[in-house]
Amino acid sequence: MAIAPDELLSLDDFERHALEVLPAMPRDYYRSGAWAETTLRENRAAWDRLRLWYRVMRDVSQRTSRAEVMGREAAMPVCVAPTALQCMAHPDGELATARASARARVPMILSSLSSTSIEDVRAAATSVDPAARTWMQIYIGRDRGAVRALAQRAQAAGCDALVLTVDTPVWGIRERDIRNHFRVPDGMRIVHLERPGGPTGHAGRGIHEALAWTIDAGLTWDDVAWLRASTSLPVILKGICRADDARRGVEAGAAGILVSNHGGRQLDGAPATIEALPHCVEAVAGRVPVLVDGGVRRGIDVIRARALGAQAVCIGRPVLWGLACAGEPGVDRVLAILRQELDVAMALAGYASVGEITADLLGP
Amino acid sequence: MAIAPDELLSLDDFERHALEVLPAMPRDYYRSGAWAETTLRENRAAWDRLRLWYRVMRDVSQRTSRAEVMGREAAMPVCVAPTALQCMAHPDGELATARASARARVPMILSSLSSTSIEDVRAAATSVDPAARTWMQIYIGRDRGAVRALAQRAQAAGCDALVLTVDTPVWGIRERDIRNHFRVPDGMRIVHLERPGGPTGHAGRGIHEALAWTIDAGLTWDDVAWLRASTSLPVILKGICRADDARRGVEAGAAGILVSNHGGRQLDGAPATIEALPHCVEAVAGRVPVLVDGGVRRGIDVIRARALGAQAVCIGRPVLWGLACAGEPGVDRVLAILRQELDVAMALAGYASVGEITADLLGP
Amino acid sequence: MAIAPDELLSLDDFERHALEVLPAMPRDYYRSGAWAETTLRENRAAWDRLRLWYRVMRDVSQRTSRAEVMGREAAMPVCVAPTALQCMAHPDGELATARASARARVPMILSSLSSTSIEDVRAAATSVDPAARTWMQIYIGRDRGAVRALAQRAQAAGCDALVLTVDTPVWGIRERDIRNHFRVPDGMRIVHLERPGGPTGHAGRGIHEALAWTIDAGLTWDDVAWLRASTSLPVILKGICRADDARRGVEAGAAGILVSNHGGRQLDGAPATIEALPHCVEAVAGRVPVLVDGGVRRGIDVIRARALGAQAVCIGRPVLWGLACAGEPGVDRVLAILRQELDVAMALAGYASVGEITADLLGP
Amino acid sequence: MAIAPDELLSLDDFERHALEVLPAMPRDYYRSGAWAETTLRENRAAWDRLRLWYRVMRDVSQRTSRAEVMGREAAMPVCVAPTALQCMAHPDGELATARASARARVPMILSSLSSTSIEDVRAAATSVDPAARTWMQIYIGRDRGAVRALAQRAQAAGCDALVLTVDTPVWGIRERDIRNHFRVPDGMRIVHLERPGGPTGHAGRGIHEALAWTIDAGLTWDDVAWLRASTSLPVILKGICRADDARRGVEAGAAGILVSNHGGRQLDGAPATIEALPHCVEAVAGRVPVLVDGGVRRGIDVIRARALGAQAVCIGRPVLWGLACAGEPGVDRVLAILRQELDVAMALAGYASVGEITADLLGP
Repeated sequence: MAIAPDELLSLDDFERHALEVLPAMPRDYYRSGAWAETTLRENRAAWDRLRLWYRVMRDVSQRTSRAEVMGREAAMPVCVAPTALQCMAHPDGELATARASARARVPMILSSLSSTSIEDVRAAATSVDPAARTWMQIYIGRDRGAVRALAQRAQAAGCDALVLTVDTPVWGIRERDIRNHFRVPDGMRIVHLERPGGPTGHAGRGIHEALAWTIDAGLTWDDVAWLRASTSLPVILKGICRADDARRGVEAGAAGILVSNHGGRQLDGAPATIEALPHCVEAVAGRVPVLVDGGVRRGIDVIRARALGAQAVCIGRPVLWGLACAGEPGVDRVLAILRQELDVAMALAGYASVGEITADLLGP
Repeated sequence: MAIAPDELLSLDDFERHALEVLPAMPRDYYRSGAWAETTLRENRAAWDRLRLWYRVMRDVSQRTSRAEVMGREAAMPVCVAPTALQCMAHPDGELATARASARARVPMILSSLSSTSIEDVRAAATSVDPAARTWMQIYIGRDRGAVRALAQRAQAAGCDALVLTVDTPVWGIRERDIRNHFRVPDGMRIVHLERPGGPTGHAGRGIHEALAWTIDAGLTWDDVAWLRASTSLPVILKGICRADDARRGVEAGAAGILVSNHGGRQLDGAPATIEALPHCVEAVAGRVPVLVDGGVRRGIDVIRARALGAQAVCIGRPVLWGLACAGEPGVDRVLAILRQELDVAMALAGYASVGEITADLLGP
Repeated sequence: MAIAPDELLSLDDFERHALEVLPAMPRDYYRSGAWAETTLRENRAAWDRLRLWYRVMRDVSQRTSRAEVMGREAAMPVCVAPTALQCMAHPDGELATARASARARVPMILSSLSSTSIEDVRAAATSVDPAARTWMQIYIGRDRGAVRALAQRAQAAGCDALVLTVDTPVWGIRERDIRNHFRVPDGMRIVHLERPGGPTGHAGRGIHEALAWTIDAGLTWDDVAWLRASTSLPVILKGICRADDARRGVEAGAAGILVSNHGGRQLDGAPATIEALPHCVEAVAGRVPVLVDGGVRRGIDVIRARALGAQAVCIGRPVLWGLACAGEPGVDRVLAILRQELDVAMALAGYASVGEITADLLGP
Repeated sequence: MAIAPDELLSLDDFERHALEVLPAMPRDYYRSGAWAETTLRENRAAWDRLRLWYRVMRDVSQRTSRAEVMGREAAMPVCVAPTALQCMAHPDGELATARASARARVPMILSSLSSTSIEDVRAAATSVDPAARTWMQIYIGRDRGAVRALAQRAQAAGCDALVLTVDTPVWGIRERDIRNHFRVPDGMRIVHLERPGGPTGHAGRGIHEALAWTIDAGLTWDDVAWLRASTSLPVILKGICRADDARRGVEAGAAGILVSNHGGRQLDGAPATIEALPHCVEAVAGRVPVLVDGGVRRGIDVIRARALGAQAVCIGRPVLWGLACAGEPGVDRVLAILRQELDVAMALAGYASVGEITADLLGP
């Protein structure tokens, strides 16, 4: 079953192989969407409907996929999206992802449900590249003190942004996990969310039950200001699909808007993110960067997202598939494939730099 | 084959399991639509096409799914739709449904083709909750005296509404039943529709032949007035898809309009009810509540219906699947799943109460 | 394999069974469309896309499916379309069809490629009903004398219309027939098209080669006038899809326009007839009746066609399936099913008579 | 496995059979599209969506499929598209194609990646028809001298046009070839692109690596003028999908625009060529001919392309399938089928000549 990463040619290859090699419990945890998984499927299908009206005879001999992402240059307009418990995919888990992301010079967003601490992740990232960027994903739970502590801990560890998930007043229902009686594996810990009074991530409880205290259905836009005041880090809002919410988020001080439906894991029936993106871009009107995740699987998707006004895309599950197939070299390969595809796609579409991509790419 | 209701996670799970465990004759009677079953399929598919543009950062910590349904509060904007001969699904039949509905605090509509009497159903319902609500579904047959008697009997038994089916001038043709030589099982009776001169529901005749006298192809809007005069109960008209008919129904004194195509069992090719709903809502213009049934399988469907202007939805077949899988606890579970899904979906879509749901949920 | 016609509940049932019982050569001859059979499939699919916005609470107790079809009343707005060589489906062939059509009181269009003579067909039809109607389908071939003779022979035999096929300047290419080396079976004859100098329909030649002389790629609108002058019968033009051709046909003296694409057997890629119908209806503007064939399989299709302005529909292949399954009783059953479905559909849609059906049935 | 070409009735038949008989490496090289092959599939599907609103009662007895193609008459508005390494499909390779094209009196475009020299191809073509037309496909690589030499060699060999591929600044990624470790077979040579300093097409290297020097990502519109100055041949630009690029190409002196996406082998996600065609036609505004390739499989496609303003279509893979199935007689048969289908389709659609085809064919 061991496979050389080079034998996998696309992120779809990684997915197919990972679904074969992973045990059922983590496999289904990673792959699943909420309820009937309509949005999960639509997230991908919506990309495929966008045609690329490529341009010819532009000089693309000196091209670069480098792009500014949230104020600093990345090797490509791609971030690693936060996904929980990466050690379920491979023992190296978030450390492997951190090193691979640093090597690929793309920001990594660490999930607050990670199985590795932000300090260890930062150490891994900076061991590869002292300038490596890590953003800390945050839920605002009922225990605001714990949230502030985590945010400050992230800043202390060298994170350069917080990513506040706003689409999770309650946990989405993923039936595969219920069927599998999903629990955090023995010996694995959700290291950032252990309560003072006892363990949270132990094997004896379902993850959503164990983590109920870490989210808060009572959040409002005022909580964005509160989180902003907790540290000096910029706060990106993740999980928005509506123009009015994007506008409201900017008014609340967001440094960026990440158009996301949580990988189809929260409200099934939500629109595909690429359908939502242009509405949010128009509402934000350039005041802050707009990012998008959900269903990105090909370099051409990066171009599509840029054409619709996103500054960058985030990829989540493909990184998990990379870990599951081959650990750190797997993540290296996933990011390398995406970058190579982006480079080739830019050449074929007539773009020497990401900044040249405009909406007319998507049709007359 | 016995299954614990908790192992079934969705109404779709109940359907799959029920189709396995039911004998062919009742299974096909319940599942079938008219002719090629186009409308049956479309009833469901049309819900799935509606995207939910959810809202974030609303305080949904104190939320409730309670809603006014036809003038009184229910635990959620859901009713149990009338379905015939529930004792075919489980020996407890309508009694189980009555108790489960009362427990869930949603109105139950008893089919006039029930295998249990309205008096027994009411007794079962009020044994759980003295305030339980039961509505009596009525066909106006050629024997108007029998219709009036049944209406008055329903009122005497404590029903608080009549639901007049208006889409059945003749019976729809369901080919599965013809293939199965469907008949009322031995020992089961259609208790409300036994003729003075002899039995109707006996095993020796096809149900539509036996019940031909209980409907009337000559009905007109004047018959609504006639039925209204028979009791003091409000009359809901069930089976309307057109704006002009909805308007006419209100003018004829309807207390509510139930947009329905009889679960795809009457005119195949009819529009999905969720397609018809907004036209009826616009025509009714708030004068009376508009309800809808047909293909409701998820909590998100309740939100979709509300966003399009329905006051409540009705669910029919899922209750039968609940009975078939596990009897009364099965119906309990079906209603509990729907309520939990609605609650989670409201939280995820940003609604603390049902009344907040508006049309902009369905897209920009 | 023998099946009682009553066991087949729909025209689709007849098709499924016929495809099982027929030998490959006639089966494929009957079922096939031209080239990739796109239009063959689309002919059916297009009907299914039309929704029926039925009406309720209309008095439909005294309803009738009777309708004027080309100037005289038929039992329903349905004709039997011309199909070739019906004796391949059953030894009784066109005689069975003639008797069943007469019994059902619908016009039968006899193909000029029939395996039975018009005189024998007329005798069979009038033996059932002296007022039975038969229309003769005609190709105008290069030998105009033979065409005139056939037209006059049809009139002499008691036909009350000619149906001129205008979509066949050359034969469409049906790959199934080529694969099967389709030939007229031994002992069967294309009785109306035998040349003075020798047999045409003998077993030794492919049908299109044998019949090349019976069509003429040089036809123009002037030939309509020529055919009209050949007899005193009205001439219906069969095979039109365009508004301008429908208008031109009326100007050329057509007594009716039959919107048809030859059952998908001529130009693959042609629009579904039900897509073409409203354009032709608008162009004809009521000056002559417009009929339609292609994919009619259900009583609701008859209503759909009427709602789009057709006076009647024609059914072709279902009659062949009726013959193949059960001979004359099979055709009786096919026509009875269609009539019963139409009757039920009219009741369910709120129409007491065919004349009440209007375009608003198809949606708001 | 040997099959008589006459047993194959359509280009689809040829494809099915060729996919069975070809070894995996050439089969996949020929069939593959870039990345997920979305555009490859869409190229075909988009043709199928176009309906043909045929005309009747036009005199089509004296019809011809002859058409002017790039200034001279061809037997039909069809060219053979350039495809690489035809000797992989059959030992006779490009020689067979040249003879068959000449026999069918359609221009052949020779790929510069051919396995046979232009001189040999011209000799084969003119042995059949001294007036046979051959166009030379050209990539402008980094070694401009080699490009000019090839262009001049083509002119010297008797080519009457150059076809400059403009959609290949880099090679598209075809995953099937990577999986197959595709290499030029032993003993086969890419005869026009051997470097002075050593072989290119040898078996030891992947084709794209070996041929990297033959393309140039730095091309601009100025290179069109450069190529034009290299010979006196007209230059057709192949690989354009956008209106602005088509306009720019004309301004740069193109003698023709070939709307193409390289058979879906370059930028996956690109629009189907038949979607792109009308935009390019409008932009070119009749100044030069517009051709189209991609997914042409039926005679009706030729009509569709003409209705959208193309002067001619090109077919690529079907010729390879013809070679693979039966060598030169296979290509003869492929071209004969297309011509016969076109002839029949013209008759059925009411066109006596290609010039009569107008846009109204595609719908009201």
